[in-house]
Amino acid sequence: MSDALAYRVAERLLAQEGTAPVWNIVLEEARVGYARIAMKIRPDMTNGLGSIHGGMIFALADTAFAYACNSRNVATVAQGASILFLSPAHPGEELVAEASEAAMAGRSGAYGVAIRTRDGRAVAQFQGHSRTVGGPIIDDSEGDSHG
Amino acid sequence: MSDALAYRVAERLLAQEGTAPVWNIVLEEARVGYARIAMKIRPDMTNGLGSIHGGMIFALADTAFAYACNSRNVATVAQGASILFLSPAHPGEELVAEASEAAMAGRSGAYGVAIRTRDGRAVAQFQGHSRTVGGPIIDDSEGDSHG
Amino acid sequence: MSDALAYRVAERLLAQEGTAPVWNIVLEEARVGYARIAMKIRPDMTNGLGSIHGGMIFALADTAFAYACNSRNVATVAQGASILFLSPAHPGEELVAEASEAAMAGRSGAYGVAIRTRDGRAVAQFQGHSRTVGGPIIDDSEGDSHG
Amino acid sequence: MSDALAYRVAERLLAQEGTAPVWNIVLEEARVGYARIAMKIRPDMTNGLGSIHGGMIFALADTAFAYACNSRNVATVAQGASILFLSPAHPGEELVAEASEAAMAGRSGAYGVAIRTRDGRAVAQFQGHSRTVGGPIIDDSEGDSHG
Repeated sequence: MSDALAYRVAERLLAQEGTAPVWNIVLEEARVGYARIAMKIRPDMTNGLGSIHGGMIFALADTAFAYACNSRNVATVAQGASILFLSPAHPGEELVAEASEAAMAGRSGAYGVAIRTRDGRAVAQFQGHSRTVGGPIIDDSEGDSHG
Repeated sequence: MSDALAYRVAERLLAQEGTAPVWNIVLEEARVGYARIAMKIRPDMTNGLGSIHGGMIFALADTAFAYACNSRNVATVAQGASILFLSPAHPGEELVAEASEAAMAGRSGAYGVAIRTRDGRAVAQFQGHSRTVGGPIIDDSEGDSHG
Repeated sequence: MSDALAYRVAERLLAQEGTAPVWNIVLEEARVGYARIAMKIRPDMTNGLGSIHGGMIFALADTAFAYACNSRNVATVAQGASILFLSPAHPGEELVAEASEAAMAGRSGAYGVAIRTRDGRAVAQFQGHSRTVGGPIIDDSEGDSHG
Repeated sequence: MSDALAYRVAERLLAQEGTAPVWNIVLEEARVGYARIAMKIRPDMTNGLGSIHGGMIFALADTAFAYACNSRNVATVAQGASILFLSPAHPGEELVAEASEAAMAGRSGAYGVAIRTRDGRAVAQFQGHSRTVGGPIIDDSEGDSHG
């Protein structure tokens, strides 16, 4: 169980996501129990008021949560989540989502995700509930390397 | 305050959403305190496991919530939401989100949104928290008509 | 699976709760997928501002949720919940919590609980996430009857 | 704005709570944006299965949240919260709730609360949404001192 493997898992998940080319998510950091990703807000991500759609804020947070909760290379799914919207953000701004493991017990995990603009304004706060289902994301015998 | 106006508000919001052409959301019904919308799951909406990304399920639910909580033509924003993921869904399936007002007090509202496949399988359940900020979505003197 | 059994299950759970004599919860109705209970607000249930403590509002909602999600006499536990506080309530008022099943898939269930004063003012709205663990609450061969 | 004032505010709130003598909550630490409290689980805090009632876990978390979000001596209320239940706990065990500010924007705040047994087992994780309403908890001219 290593930070390098955690990064490879996040890379693998990102590569397999159908949403990856649509959302242009950038993986910035991933370690055991942690992931940080970024996304630039575009006009095709806005709601009826011209600010970023709550669904896109959640999508970014949920993606960071997925990388953090799968970081041990044991397949883990989201059971649920809650999100608080703190301030709007707009096209041209970049959002950064930072996910950290808060607690684990048996197959259940709790993760917090802070969503901020690149310059540090709080946009939303997310809490995710994970459930470990088992099986690897990456077959360790594959020998693929990150970097 | 009428169901016809509620439908026009939902139409207007949908037309103004930058995400509308990306997500291809279909407005099926809107009345005071209620909205039902649908979305076909495409391969570019999937997560790293091949099922629909949690962010896209939330995005659909959040959109139905927006139409329901703005249905009185008084601008209202989401303060937060929680979602429970009940079963996965896949490309080729169609999701239907049905939002209903559960409670109101002062400027705060609570809405429930059921997300199901077109044939009725429960996929997720969402609870949204709204805050009325005031001002109309549609200027009543505009004379635009729905239908 | 009957409404009469659902009522007996709720009665049994209430009788076994250590909190029952402390909170004085009254079981008003229980059927399959549904429960309604009431609680009078007392001065020893208040927070530092003199209104009912959020923990007591949640406790009431969570209890109604427990009766509704165990109503099929299959042991079921709470995985999580979210609550929205809509208006304060005070000693002398009576709260009514009404829990309804919103969705089920496999072992997971979603329940909504409305918390209102006896005269209908919305105080809070709750969403609960249940997980069926199995085994009966009441042994059907016991022959105990409700009423 | 000081940690000493934050402690006095928490003391004051605890002293004013009608629930204080019922729950026997112990204030262990309070600083700006942070609070840690403890509670011994008693038989009159149990649910129908003999473990601590979810309502009591939430009540403990919500109390720590209140002390943390009022720590700047500006009256602040809970708008909502979500909780994930990770493992059961039983009479004889002691729970510790540790609340930390996660994000602030305008009048809205997000707090995380970890609930663990005294020996460190994760029992629940809580996310609270606060709204500043204004006015002091303690009149600074009162000259009361903590300790």
